[in-house]
Amino acid sequence: MKKIVTFGELMMRLATQNNERFGQARSLGLTYGGGEFNVAVSLANYGLNAQFVTRLPNNDLGKSALEEVNRFQVNADHILFGGDRLGVYFLEQGAGLRASSVVYDRANSALATVETNTFDWQTIFKNADWFHWSGVTPALSQTAADVTLEAIKVAKSMGVKISCDLNYRSKLWQYGKSPSEVMSELLAYSTVILGDIDTAYFMLGKEKVNPDYTATNELANLYKPLFEHCSNLDYVATSLRNSINTSHQRIGGILFDGAQLFTSKSYEVSYVVDRVGSGDAFMGGLIYGLNELPAQEAINFATAACVLKHTIPGDLNRVSVNEVEKLTTGGGDVQR
Amino acid sequence: MKKIVTFGELMMRLATQNNERFGQARSLGLTYGGGEFNVAVSLANYGLNAQFVTRLPNNDLGKSALEEVNRFQVNADHILFGGDRLGVYFLEQGAGLRASSVVYDRANSALATVETNTFDWQTIFKNADWFHWSGVTPALSQTAADVTLEAIKVAKSMGVKISCDLNYRSKLWQYGKSPSEVMSELLAYSTVILGDIDTAYFMLGKEKVNPDYTATNELANLYKPLFEHCSNLDYVATSLRNSINTSHQRIGGILFDGAQLFTSKSYEVSYVVDRVGSGDAFMGGLIYGLNELPAQEAINFATAACVLKHTIPGDLNRVSVNEVEKLTTGGGDVQR
Amino acid sequence: MKKIVTFGELMMRLATQNNERFGQARSLGLTYGGGEFNVAVSLANYGLNAQFVTRLPNNDLGKSALEEVNRFQVNADHILFGGDRLGVYFLEQGAGLRASSVVYDRANSALATVETNTFDWQTIFKNADWFHWSGVTPALSQTAADVTLEAIKVAKSMGVKISCDLNYRSKLWQYGKSPSEVMSELLAYSTVILGDIDTAYFMLGKEKVNPDYTATNELANLYKPLFEHCSNLDYVATSLRNSINTSHQRIGGILFDGAQLFTSKSYEVSYVVDRVGSGDAFMGGLIYGLNELPAQEAINFATAACVLKHTIPGDLNRVSVNEVEKLTTGGGDVQR
Amino acid sequence: MKKIVTFGELMMRLATQNNERFGQARSLGLTYGGGEFNVAVSLANYGLNAQFVTRLPNNDLGKSALEEVNRFQVNADHILFGGDRLGVYFLEQGAGLRASSVVYDRANSALATVETNTFDWQTIFKNADWFHWSGVTPALSQTAADVTLEAIKVAKSMGVKISCDLNYRSKLWQYGKSPSEVMSELLAYSTVILGDIDTAYFMLGKEKVNPDYTATNELANLYKPLFEHCSNLDYVATSLRNSINTSHQRIGGILFDGAQLFTSKSYEVSYVVDRVGSGDAFMGGLIYGLNELPAQEAINFATAACVLKHTIPGDLNRVSVNEVEKLTTGGGDVQR
Amino acid sequence: MKKIVTFGELMMRLATQNNERFGQARSLGLTYGGGEFNVAVSLANYGLNAQFVTRLPNNDLGKSALEEVNRFQVNADHILFGGDRLGVYFLEQGAGLRASSVVYDRANSALATVETNTFDWQTIFKNADWFHWSGVTPALSQTAADVTLEAIKVAKSMGVKISCDLNYRSKLWQYGKSPSEVMSELLAYSTVILGDIDTAYFMLGKEKVNPDYTATNELANLYKPLFEHCSNLDYVATSLRNSINTSHQRIGGILFDGAQLFTSKSYEVSYVVDRVGSGDAFMGGLIYGLNELPAQEAINFATAACVLKHTIPGDLNRVSVNEVEKLTTGGGDVQR
Amino acid sequence: MKKIVTFGELMMRLATQNNERFGQARSLGLTYGGGEFNVAVSLANYGLNAQFVTRLPNNDLGKSALEEVNRFQVNADHILFGGDRLGVYFLEQGAGLRASSVVYDRANSALATVETNTFDWQTIFKNADWFHWSGVTPALSQTAADVTLEAIKVAKSMGVKISCDLNYRSKLWQYGKSPSEVMSELLAYSTVILGDIDTAYFMLGKEKVNPDYTATNELANLYKPLFEHCSNLDYVATSLRNSINTSHQRIGGILFDGAQLFTSKSYEVSYVVDRVGSGDAFMGGLIYGLNELPAQEAINFATAACVLKHTIPGDLNRVSVNEVEKLTTGGGDVQR
Repeated sequence: MKKIVTFGELMMRLATQNNERFGQARSLGLTYGGGEFNVAVSLANYGLNAQFVTRLPNNDLGKSALEEVNRFQVNADHILFGGDRLGVYFLEQGAGLRASSVVYDRANSALATVETNTFDWQTIFKNADWFHWSGVTPALSQTAADVTLEAIKVAKSMGVKISCDLNYRSKLWQYGKSPSEVMSELLAYSTVILGDIDTAYFMLGKEKVNPDYTATNELANLYKPLFEHCSNLDYVATSLRNSINTSHQRIGGILFDGAQLFTSKSYEVSYVVDRVGSGDAFMGGLIYGLNELPAQEAINFATAACVLKHTIPGDLNRVSVNEVEKLTTGGGDVQR
Repeated sequence: MKKIVTFGELMMRLATQNNERFGQARSLGLTYGGGEFNVAVSLANYGLNAQFVTRLPNNDLGKSALEEVNRFQVNADHILFGGDRLGVYFLEQGAGLRASSVVYDRANSALATVETNTFDWQTIFKNADWFHWSGVTPALSQTAADVTLEAIKVAKSMGVKISCDLNYRSKLWQYGKSPSEVMSELLAYSTVILGDIDTAYFMLGKEKVNPDYTATNELANLYKPLFEHCSNLDYVATSLRNSINTSHQRIGGILFDGAQLFTSKSYEVSYVVDRVGSGDAFMGGLIYGLNELPAQEAINFATAACVLKHTIPGDLNRVSVNEVEKLTTGGGDVQR
Repeated sequence: MKKIVTFGELMMRLATQNNERFGQARSLGLTYGGGEFNVAVSLANYGLNAQFVTRLPNNDLGKSALEEVNRFQVNADHILFGGDRLGVYFLEQGAGLRASSVVYDRANSALATVETNTFDWQTIFKNADWFHWSGVTPALSQTAADVTLEAIKVAKSMGVKISCDLNYRSKLWQYGKSPSEVMSELLAYSTVILGDIDTAYFMLGKEKVNPDYTATNELANLYKPLFEHCSNLDYVATSLRNSINTSHQRIGGILFDGAQLFTSKSYEVSYVVDRVGSGDAFMGGLIYGLNELPAQEAINFATAACVLKHTIPGDLNRVSVNEVEKLTTGGGDVQR
Repeated sequence: MKKIVTFGELMMRLATQNNERFGQARSLGLTYGGGEFNVAVSLANYGLNAQFVTRLPNNDLGKSALEEVNRFQVNADHILFGGDRLGVYFLEQGAGLRASSVVYDRANSALATVETNTFDWQTIFKNADWFHWSGVTPALSQTAADVTLEAIKVAKSMGVKISCDLNYRSKLWQYGKSPSEVMSELLAYSTVILGDIDTAYFMLGKEKVNPDYTATNELANLYKPLFEHCSNLDYVATSLRNSINTSHQRIGGILFDGAQLFTSKSYEVSYVVDRVGSGDAFMGGLIYGLNELPAQEAINFATAACVLKHTIPGDLNRVSVNEVEKLTTGGGDVQR
Repeated sequence: MKKIVTFGELMMRLATQNNERFGQARSLGLTYGGGEFNVAVSLANYGLNAQFVTRLPNNDLGKSALEEVNRFQVNADHILFGGDRLGVYFLEQGAGLRASSVVYDRANSALATVETNTFDWQTIFKNADWFHWSGVTPALSQTAADVTLEAIKVAKSMGVKISCDLNYRSKLWQYGKSPSEVMSELLAYSTVILGDIDTAYFMLGKEKVNPDYTATNELANLYKPLFEHCSNLDYVATSLRNSINTSHQRIGGILFDGAQLFTSKSYEVSYVVDRVGSGDAFMGGLIYGLNELPAQEAINFATAACVLKHTIPGDLNRVSVNEVEKLTTGGGDVQR
Repeated sequence: MKKIVTFGELMMRLATQNNERFGQARSLGLTYGGGEFNVAVSLANYGLNAQFVTRLPNNDLGKSALEEVNRFQVNADHILFGGDRLGVYFLEQGAGLRASSVVYDRANSALATVETNTFDWQTIFKNADWFHWSGVTPALSQTAADVTLEAIKVAKSMGVKISCDLNYRSKLWQYGKSPSEVMSELLAYSTVILGDIDTAYFMLGKEKVNPDYTATNELANLYKPLFEHCSNLDYVATSLRNSINTSHQRIGGILFDGAQLFTSKSYEVSYVVDRVGSGDAFMGGLIYGLNELPAQEAINFATAACVLKHTIPGDLNRVSVNEVEKLTTGGGDVQR
């Protein structure tokens, strides 16, 4: 059983219900989520040995968040207690032609204020096969960026493969540095990168190119700078999402190994129950796939996992390997 | 007012809410349903004299189930109390590309353990015009199969028309007999059979043929063995359902009298509120139609009733004759 | 900041939840709404000085309704307390091929029983730029029709522009007069009329013509009688709605100034969260647009406002100018 | 099995939930109730043949109300459809030192507007043993009072026993007559009267006397005018309720046959789940008791039934004979 | 109509429901509250001209909070938008022998980071009769303390009466100053102080004395230092609360004018729906009373208002003058 | 950290909400519980190394139950998948003078059908300090009794202390043996027994004696047969519960070591949120206490833990050591 470590923030998610706008809500649905945690849950659901590393505040809210980690048999041995508050995000679920909206309230969270030399990375990465992080963590604060780099370097030194989901969030990055100042160095260690070309270019400080992902021939050229910047890079992957409206998405994915392009089939996803976490579901499916399956099946698995996430409320992709694999052959009837 | 008797199990239905998966549920929606009861409720809603026969446990849950029977003015005079437990089924509602899932917990239920000579069929079928049963009841246990045969024979002897919804459920049939061993004899008495050709063939012990229901010419040949096996058979009917995904169905129906094929229009059903019970809604519409309308209108009515069921939560089709008939001319605007 | 006065009934709305039919409901969602109030809330949300005039019963329900008026910063200075009861409407939300259904329970409401010389229209219209009323109010009772005429005449005498949403409701008009007997005189003062041609014709006592709204050339002719009847008429507008089913609407709009036709783009609206109040959202957008924008942008704004309403539960269109304007450029992604 | 007929209004009850005040409610719990219906349900639950007579509007709300009647196996054969609207009452549940509050919205209801010669009382009272009415119905309108008298006279002529729950509601009686003008005649036919002495005096047009119900000796004198006015009177009963606060009641009861006083034990009822309908629960218990038990046991049963009602949400007393009888010997432990 | 200004933080309150602990919650009830806002709502409910001053973040959450201010007709003209986040507090409702628990998450809120010269106090206090603040605001941050002093000084200079609720919260005061360093100066301007003697002593830097509030004679001595420190002090008031358990409180109050002690009756409050905000309800009742009633009636009113708050969910005391006054004469019966 | 093993059934609990009776419920609250699991969760919450052993069905319901075990960091390494169904119990929550009611539906559950030689007890008890079982498991079936004996013998052979909660449930024991036939042998190995004297006598086949637990002198005599039967018995404990009504309990506890009696203080518990699991909370507190505290403090801790359980919905006692200990010094105020 492969051991995969993910590192990031675990937040309380407070979401409006029954299509209400924020001003209508008299109660908010409470779950817990965060990109890298979401990935860890996917991996645990697929039977891998997933470990999640974070810092939670030592209060009732932090402890409640920890219960959710335990629930999914994600290893929590290196989750520390400390800091002042649990990061929160408020989600207003959209529908039809009204977009969903997120209000982040994660400044000064337990993870945003963590400092280097807090986590015991040597122990954490012992026997680990893979380390996953995302562009959200270095976007939180300088110290969070520092700790991310610290983790990456130890992982690298111990021969652990490293994946990054670029995950650019414009509402973060409030601490005075631009993404390219920070991400460029962090990305250089990557084995696998998930993200579209323009986000990758943006994080490397390059100009946008508005790539055409159906133009297979050009993609090799466009990805080239990424492979050059990241000397260990095995794969780049991108989910291809076409938003017809909030309730109707068209979803596919591609995987590129520097030479060959693997393309999954495209799905009509309608209606959408909850889109948040679907990128993490893709990432979780991809890590599983790249560890357990051939490349073509890996991208198929990642895309199907992403599709299924749209049918499940909350951040987490509560699906099994079997369910993801079954999607490729259809589905939709009551099982009885 | 025609008197129609249906016989089968009435279960507690416990369904996840708000698109939750089983592992997320902190409450379950509680309703009551079961194929033959669902048919009886449809018929009562259409103004017929519907009688439902079953056995319920003599505890608070059985009594609560009985309240639901009364509520719809379905005659409950021959519902008996006895046995150990109320059958339960757990329903996880799917959405989009995630299928719904049922966990049956109906073994050793009050009906599954009922024995012959329990119900007073002579009295039950007095003045009855029609008896409806389905392939679910003989799938429960040997004794349930025996009691079904007992009922059918009495009905036949009293000149009552007999309809069967084949309703094959692979998760049932756990008591050691194959469907064809049991159903073949039971079906022989039928006046009307609802089911697709391959299920019928399977229950007669014949090989599957994957029929093309648009090839009208072939259908007469394919249905022939059914008409031969069932000497009193007036009609076979099939709902034609194409599942785009869990939330989007395409629904039509055909009715065949051994010579002429009657085809209803096809409906796009999106989005689907609750698909469970839609086959029973079709059956209920069909029995109403075959008793009150010409054949073409009967299949139109059955299909429209089935379509409307998809918009109503729970097993039961809470619609009137007027509402079903209105569907053929459109609808969709607020009535005010 | 333009001052817009609207006058009409504010009702308690009691709606089934989770797609339930009336007979299934064990609780009803409680909000407050009414066509002219809904328009006032839209206008307040867009930053205009909206004033709503009505009469509410002096009991806990009337006071709760008033809280909703205050909530949206709609001016309530001329809302009076009196009469016996709050009007109520019960809403059964439809889905897919099942239409929504409204049961009105507004007879003898505080507004329906109001008499002339109750409201101080001279003070109400002081500094007002616009007065909006709809065909619902004169449909309630003779006295409500009388008070509407009273208001219109004062508005006219004070140079206030007057808009009317024809809003024909066949379940109202129970007091012995036909719509054309009453509406013909009331409409004559209008600056702006919202409604389709046949409803307008019906209210002027003319025969239906089933106009083709895509036949631009003909429209001028068809609208001519309206402009002749209403000597101050600047614009007629119509929302163009095509109901695929209850959950899927196609929505556009046109605005005609007697000479030039302005047509908005058409939107696919799927799925529909709540259609009630979407006409009022159109009206609210139109009044805003005609006060603040060129004609083409006004109809674009009205149509987009109407579209967004379909995504929001309740009667009220909780959207900002910014959100309406953004719809024209797309949307549908999570904002984070 | 004794046949008991009750006659009165069946209303939709809309109650605030979770201790909310009206202004806080965003949904209201929907049940159905009405004094005489509540009594009928109690009697059906106790195994008697209960028949409820009323008029309901012929719309979805009236039909939903009828489902509730059927649910409890109360005979609905003489419930008519007609009139304009279903009576509604809004309930704000109190707690601790905040009283509950009711807003009636029952003017012009289907029952309030019913006229004489509508119900077929001869058929209704065929084989009936008992007729129950209450002071609420004649309080609705002159015609409702007339129909009540009509029913009473037929019942009397057919030898049916007649009980009345005085049930004075100061918010009713709005049609121009005082209670004593109307009730005096109606009460004269009574076999059993439920109500305190001062309410009875008030309805006979006599002055209040503030009786001391523990002064057994005086009670005979105080009840004397009642026995004189009602020549057939067998019993008067009064529930003795001491409201410590909304959540804590002290409850007992007395029954007087003109000579002997029967007193039940007194119960501490804390906390109170729902007090509405507890008087009807007392009445239902009393009618059952006077038909099936000796007088002392009858008052014991009525009081215990009243006590149990306080633990059950809604108007209806969902208890069995067995449960009421068990209360006298204790209770409070989980039954498992 | 007296004009009363209150100043403080308005927070989002997220409370567990149905007696759940934090770890069990899957949704949280959302309301808005804050001590000084709660007081303003009480005063508006009592018909006074209440103005609330605060700063809210310019996002959807801040705007939703503002809707609540408007709802209650509290004047919001001087509520500013700015800062980064809305303060939040999480409430776990206790029951019986389990205490309620609050997790504050209000650091760096829009109000905590406000600076002097932000609010236009001269305009705010124009025509004002009273200014109310509490010990919570200076506990938030140095700048919040500074702004409080700024407000107090302007109020004083304009002849506005000043009340303070001492409201010591040990979980606040995290910015490096002790309460006595800050509060001593602020309190000196007070006309009315609400709080127990030991809290007052603590804020003046004096030792605790554990006073016996029934020893009327001693109280004059004990209050003396307070009157000496605050040269304008007219009254000190204290609510006397005895917590039998979380669900059962005993509540009274005293008011002292430096010479005479006014004592209200004591109430048993059981069960408690929601205790949060009951101190603010006392304060609101006291300000109303001191402005409109004689001293004895003022303390009676304050205590009864406090008692009623325990029956209402949320921070706000949704009661009228009439309801508070009625409590003194009893209550507890359904009003119908 | 002491290792404590518990063995028993984990059931789905489906409970009515908001004081509803079974017949009123339209949804049921879903949690998971079972006496021995409840004890394990208490112990894990207190920081001990708790391991729970059971068998769950290999379906979605069994897996959801397992998530709950993981959530609380109870070791699940020896939970097996197998058997046909998850045991279920339906709970109707009582209130005031209406008792709660349980409908068990646990026949043929995964645990009831487990056979000997299924669990690897040698490994399970490795390094274990304590084994806890209850009288519920041998009441399920002969095989469950056999497996219990198997476990006890291995535990005994490995020097593990053994506690039993007698937990007599009259609705179980349906497989043909009387409790004394089975329990007598099982109990003989006990180190600690929880239960009242009469239940213990009943399980040893002795006559009831109705002991007076306040008569300290007699208790030694009464407990003597138990100490004689169980040669390793260190302690017997009994919770002393006086049920004023369902919502009001009086709770204390005693612990007896064969010579000395330790008595905890008695608590008034009002109102009761959820009584189910309070005996398990007592047991969990007792095991913790006997492992970590002197005898007097142990019984104090057990009683306080039991008291707190009454305030928490669900079977599980979600409290910490700190919270239990704090109860002895009071509580009831909001913590802020």
